[in-house]
Amino acid sequence: MTYCLGIFLPEGLVLASDSRTNAGVDQIAVVRKLACFTTPQDRMIALLSAGNLATTQAVVTILRQAWGQGDPAQDLQTARTLFDAANTVADVYRAVLARDGEHVKPYGDASGSFLIGGQIAGEPHRLFQMYPAGNFIEATPRTQFLQIGETKYGKPILDRALRFDSSMAHAAKLALISFDATIRSNLSVAPPIDLLCYRKDSFANDRLKKYKKSDPDWARIRDAYSDGLMALLKSVPDPEI
Amino acid sequence: MTYCLGIFLPEGLVLASDSRTNAGVDQIAVVRKLACFTTPQDRMIALLSAGNLATTQAVVTILRQAWGQGDPAQDLQTARTLFDAANTVADVYRAVLARDGEHVKPYGDASGSFLIGGQIAGEPHRLFQMYPAGNFIEATPRTQFLQIGETKYGKPILDRALRFDSSMAHAAKLALISFDATIRSNLSVAPPIDLLCYRKDSFANDRLKKYKKSDPDWARIRDAYSDGLMALLKSVPDPEI
Repeated sequence: MTYCLGIFLPEGLVLASDSRTNAGVDQIAVVRKLACFTTPQDRMIALLSAGNLATTQAVVTILRQAWGQGDPAQDLQTARTLFDAANTVADVYRAVLARDGEHVKPYGDASGSFLIGGQIAGEPHRLFQMYPAGNFIEATPRTQFLQIGETKYGKPILDRALRFDSSMAHAAKLALISFDATIRSNLSVAPPIDLLCYRKDSFANDRLKKYKKSDPDWARIRDAYSDGLMALLKSVPDPEI
Repeated sequence: MTYCLGIFLPEGLVLASDSRTNAGVDQIAVVRKLACFTTPQDRMIALLSAGNLATTQAVVTILRQAWGQGDPAQDLQTARTLFDAANTVADVYRAVLARDGEHVKPYGDASGSFLIGGQIAGEPHRLFQMYPAGNFIEATPRTQFLQIGETKYGKPILDRALRFDSSMAHAAKLALISFDATIRSNLSVAPPIDLLCYRKDSFANDRLKKYKKSDPDWARIRDAYSDGLMALLKSVPDPEI
């Protein structure tokens, strides 16, 4: 499994993914699930993926190979808007499924899902979630975070604490806590966490950070939250039983 | 959907269920998912159920009708141990599935799952989780809580804070917070919450309490936890981004 999270903020986007892939409990590997396509001053498109690894890797590889080649069917550099870019991802994804889907069926599910976030010059930053069917929805101030993969364990903290006017640093903190909750409850999600804070109009992915389990910044947040939560739970009054 | 939780403690058991049933978003009803079978000084058997409501109601109804009738295949009063009682529940459940399963298939899934907790004189209190196949596992000090239905949203708080030596009041508090987290994140789980604190060797279900959303005890816990969590999240240091 996998957990990927995208948060839409006035300041920009917070995008995060874990690194575990598994095909059974004895086939576990560390992979990167966050890919960036950037042209300075013009575009930053991040693609986060969950689902069948062969499928999602093929999609990213085809998009990489086509980058700058000018073929509008596959080249994210020619997309006029992020909506168009999401459609390009969908087309490539559906082509991979058409090629591999039937062959994979006897062994499992070939489908994948994606978060597509970023900005293309001429429009604001945007965030999309693509379903296994290749159709997609867009984040708005009312639907402020989108998740794919193993989404449930990490959702309560976001439902409670994320606001549209949250700062990017606060949202990044909530994202790290959301990943920590998921990792504690589910073996199929594991560090390192790739976390990209995209500041609007920067058209750059220079704020991409890899959080290993031992990262002191993440450990400080994890410990402060965990200790604080234990103290809080003690202080909350017990019910009368 | 449904959420049912059973916690196994040295002091006894904490058993809780929500009350929402839905077959599509416009067929929502309030039902009781916690049934008790008691004989003073001899046995208290609680049955919590999730899944197809027609199936789980049929199982409870058959067990009620058979109660005290002396048929060892269906009468929980004749079960010598809680393990035997769980097998009786499985037999009745499988009979219901055999009768209805094929007829239901065109419309959906007829299966259900159960928590069976309580005590029969002569042995300690015990807690079982029955899968849709009718087989079951038992809680131990190492597998201290069991969940059925919509289990994921409410799991992180239990993974973090529940200990085998937790007091019953503390565990009941965690259960109420676990239900609150689930209710906030998922429309298919809703109050009232039925919460039974079974004290070992009491063979009684007199500590069964129904928590409506407006219940002052639950509201106090919910508000103290929610306010405390917001303050905690502010106090946890932001990551460097």
